[in-house]
Amino acid sequence: MSRIAYVNGSYCDLIRAYTHVEDRGYQFADGVYEVFAVIDKHIIDYDGHIERLYRSLGELKMKSPINKKSYIFHIRNIIKKNYLHNGTIYLQITRGVASRDFKFPKNSKESLVIIAKNLPLDYFSQQFDRGINVKLVKDLRWKRVDIKTLNLLPPVLAKQLAYENNCEEAWLVDDEGYITEGSSSNAWILCKRQLITRPISNSILNGITRKSLIKALDKINIKLVEKKFNIHDIKKADEAFITSATQLVTPVIKIDNFKIGSGQIGPMSRKFRNAYMEAVQLS
Amino acid sequence: MSRIAYVNGSYCDLIRAYTHVEDRGYQFADGVYEVFAVIDKHIIDYDGHIERLYRSLGELKMKSPINKKSYIFHIRNIIKKNYLHNGTIYLQITRGVASRDFKFPKNSKESLVIIAKNLPLDYFSQQFDRGINVKLVKDLRWKRVDIKTLNLLPPVLAKQLAYENNCEEAWLVDDEGYITEGSSSNAWILCKRQLITRPISNSILNGITRKSLIKALDKINIKLVEKKFNIHDIKKADEAFITSATQLVTPVIKIDNFKIGSGQIGPMSRKFRNAYMEAVQLS
Repeated sequence: MSRIAYVNGSYCDLIRAYTHVEDRGYQFADGVYEVFAVIDKHIIDYDGHIERLYRSLGELKMKSPINKKSYIFHIRNIIKKNYLHNGTIYLQITRGVASRDFKFPKNSKESLVIIAKNLPLDYFSQQFDRGINVKLVKDLRWKRVDIKTLNLLPPVLAKQLAYENNCEEAWLVDDEGYITEGSSSNAWILCKRQLITRPISNSILNGITRKSLIKALDKINIKLVEKKFNIHDIKKADEAFITSATQLVTPVIKIDNFKIGSGQIGPMSRKFRNAYMEAVQLS
Repeated sequence: MSRIAYVNGSYCDLIRAYTHVEDRGYQFADGVYEVFAVIDKHIIDYDGHIERLYRSLGELKMKSPINKKSYIFHIRNIIKKNYLHNGTIYLQITRGVASRDFKFPKNSKESLVIIAKNLPLDYFSQQFDRGINVKLVKDLRWKRVDIKTLNLLPPVLAKQLAYENNCEEAWLVDDEGYITEGSSSNAWILCKRQLITRPISNSILNGITRKSLIKALDKINIKLVEKKFNIHDIKKADEAFITSATQLVTPVIKIDNFKIGSGQIGPMSRKFRNAYMEAVQLS
């Protein structure tokens, strides 16, 4: 079965989905993106992702190439055309094609690409049950990672370094020794019934799953503390986990060969995950 | 006349030069590049650029998609096919096409694109004669800008901000108030016969034109001092200029509305430019 992509107004076979070599996404990482989880054919947290997409476009002074209401139409089409039951939708907007020049082109039209990826039916549940290892890696990224841009080489290198060290994720460490976030997720630790995660700033992405989980915490008797944490806090943690659109709430069982709590998936992580899944917006 | 590009082993019309939407250059800025100036059909500083290209590939654990000796063959072909007399060659290598995943793909093959741009015959000489305005902009880039990667959104935003303020270049300012370099050039000031530029580190690109100019300084009675400089040093400067492959040695006459020296192109800048042009490697 061939996969179908949306590229600048047309649907085509993914293997024939091309963009021009002078697309500014290709030469300058001049663009933004979002990833949506699809579970049982439903888009997870659609409104949050679209709202953030528009914020990212605004920060880069880019325009949406299509009407805001059209996104759900094309995403639903892509879900249908790819027979997507469980999987992800990747949506990318760049500043478009122009003769190479650092400054913004005057007459380019933004490029839009939407790609679907099918995942096994048990992918999202297995994601929770396995528990992952994390490696601490120096945060080399630029100073506006609150914008979800294509400027992704530093997290690519961090994730690769984690992978080479038998870890599934890298937690990035700032110059002062504090964790900013994961290479493609937000980072959380639970210490004595305090759930700790770094507050929103230019140094982390305002995760949609992070936001939804915080809302869902109302139903759990736990104190959320938004503050920076470092390796010393990690060593005192009872549990740890990451959140992201594709990994939902995924437990962390080891960080740099240091076992978190009992080294097993913690009971509270399961509660957070369940509360998140119950409260999540389905479209 | 149509422009001809080289894309992954073939020559084609530039308007038909495409890459796949899952090229890692497009989704992750996972690639490197070089820009060569071509003057009177000669490639400027070819060896230096190719040496740096291989260093960049090595730092990202990428392989060259073609034999090292083949680069000059394809670049010369592109010069001929585009009737390039004066202009630039843009050469980009990405980690290739793979299903989207932050970590390196196992079986992708690096993508190579070479594009030519014709410039007016007097472009390079006019570049010197006009003198440019510079805006100081906060350096938001990642911490390995010594690698010439596609992770270019921060310098794009800096250059655009400069442009919106009637400046041709941005000089980037680090957290301590020191200039790192231009958004696409190295930065220099001349203070009382001391030529000052920031020393090589992870915070600046090791410019090929910078390197060639330093060699050419042997013939000029001037003391080179590689050290950091800030706005206070700039205010004491007699002259200032930038170096880059496409801008060679270009004088700076104003920085943030502060006139450099007399506000005219300085006599020493002309000497540096001439010494550079005499010593430069032509291929």
